[in-house]
Amino acid sequence: MLHSAPVLNGNLPDHPLFHVQPKGWESIASSLMLREYTLGESVIHHGDEAEYLWLVFKGWVKLTRQTPDGKETIVRLCTTGDVFGKAALFAQANYPYHAEVISQHATIGSIPAGQLRTLVAANPPIAAHIMNLMNERAAQAQLKLEHLNTMSASQRLGCFLLGLCHTQLHGPLQIEIPISKNILASYLGMKPETFSRSMQQLKTLGITMDGPHIHLPDVMKLRNYVCNSCSESGDCDIESNLE
Amino acid sequence: MLHSAPVLNGNLPDHPLFHVQPKGWESIASSLMLREYTLGESVIHHGDEAEYLWLVFKGWVKLTRQTPDGKETIVRLCTTGDVFGKAALFAQANYPYHAEVISQHATIGSIPAGQLRTLVAANPPIAAHIMNLMNERAAQAQLKLEHLNTMSASQRLGCFLLGLCHTQLHGPLQIEIPISKNILASYLGMKPETFSRSMQQLKTLGITMDGPHIHLPDVMKLRNYVCNSCSESGDCDIESNLE
Repeated sequence: MLHSAPVLNGNLPDHPLFHVQPKGWESIASSLMLREYTLGESVIHHGDEAEYLWLVFKGWVKLTRQTPDGKETIVRLCTTGDVFGKAALFAQANYPYHAEVISQHATIGSIPAGQLRTLVAANPPIAAHIMNLMNERAAQAQLKLEHLNTMSASQRLGCFLLGLCHTQLHGPLQIEIPISKNILASYLGMKPETFSRSMQQLKTLGITMDGPHIHLPDVMKLRNYVCNSCSESGDCDIESNLE
Repeated sequence: MLHSAPVLNGNLPDHPLFHVQPKGWESIASSLMLREYTLGESVIHHGDEAEYLWLVFKGWVKLTRQTPDGKETIVRLCTTGDVFGKAALFAQANYPYHAEVISQHATIGSIPAGQLRTLVAANPPIAAHIMNLMNERAAQAQLKLEHLNTMSASQRLGCFLLGLCHTQLHGPLQIEIPISKNILASYLGMKPETFSRSMQQLKTLGITMDGPHIHLPDVMKLRNYVCNSCSESGDCDIESNLE
């Protein structure tokens, strides 16, 4: 794995992981490496020793697993602000998925596992923060399971879009999803034709898709459509940024 | 909430949570309370402040959530050795589900949130252990999502049974599941009739159900049937004991 130069001056680039206890994270600034990737490049391989924690600064990454009988599942689609490879938090752990860049370009950072574990062991508030992220991540996977029972396909697509709205709760919004519809459909557990039908249904809320650009005329309208069928009732951090 | 007397002599009763760093856990022995519950009793309510972490010593507990439009989802079925209410690890957190006893009797312990958080903050190996349990829990929810895509209903039922075999990998086994088939079917995301058909299909492996008793003539045969369609290939701790 090639890495570009470490981040200069010991200053941490902006990432949600560092928003809690920013002073505590400064000790790893000199070992955080940033690298540019292009479409189709692998970042980590399923089963490899987890030597780094990975932070997405820009772009999209697909995390996948394969069954022995050859079926592929998309575990998660990671984008700006997300973290993957949390196996690096544990000694002698391996990555439980393959990670591949699925946008034209991506900027991804890596923190060596040793430094990370030393920091977490020495800093209880950072350990508590990571525990909290893990808890949210488990809750989100659980919620996704719930949604398969309680939501229609178009509501699940709507929920995914809401996850990209971040903290914006009202008004119009333009989202860019520079990844193929087939990947998105597969991640949402839908056939491509179901995905197309779901997109059609969202048009009744004024939502339109033009290539990678999705236009939402009113985020609140989508929330009303989606969150009434979710036990979190919209009171969620839809996508926890740790995988 | 009524509690029986604390555990005597400061000795901890046996529970997997205490298997890592047992010395560290001794400090909470005097605040661990055990109580007997009966069928239908509520242990915690969705939205209540998370004042305790809950340990199942015996019996079965159903964790559920409801959507605003009235659908109920079973988050998890907990039994001997499981832990629920991990929201107690975090300040000002609320329980994200309702917990109800679904076996005739259950023995459940509770650890006050304050003591738990003090212990975790002061003991990095225990914090790391809990982080590991959370990581496994997230991975298991993720795996359950995968199984909906990669496994048949009878394989998913088989996977649930394997989770109750614990460390036994070979040979015959008798399991007792003293809960209704409808609850089990709902937890597995199946209609009752699909559950019955799945049970019929497992008969081809010699697996039989007689009331709450399930007889598996050969655990390995079931593993071969199930785990070839799972990206963990059977190399999993199917049910992490933390929820």
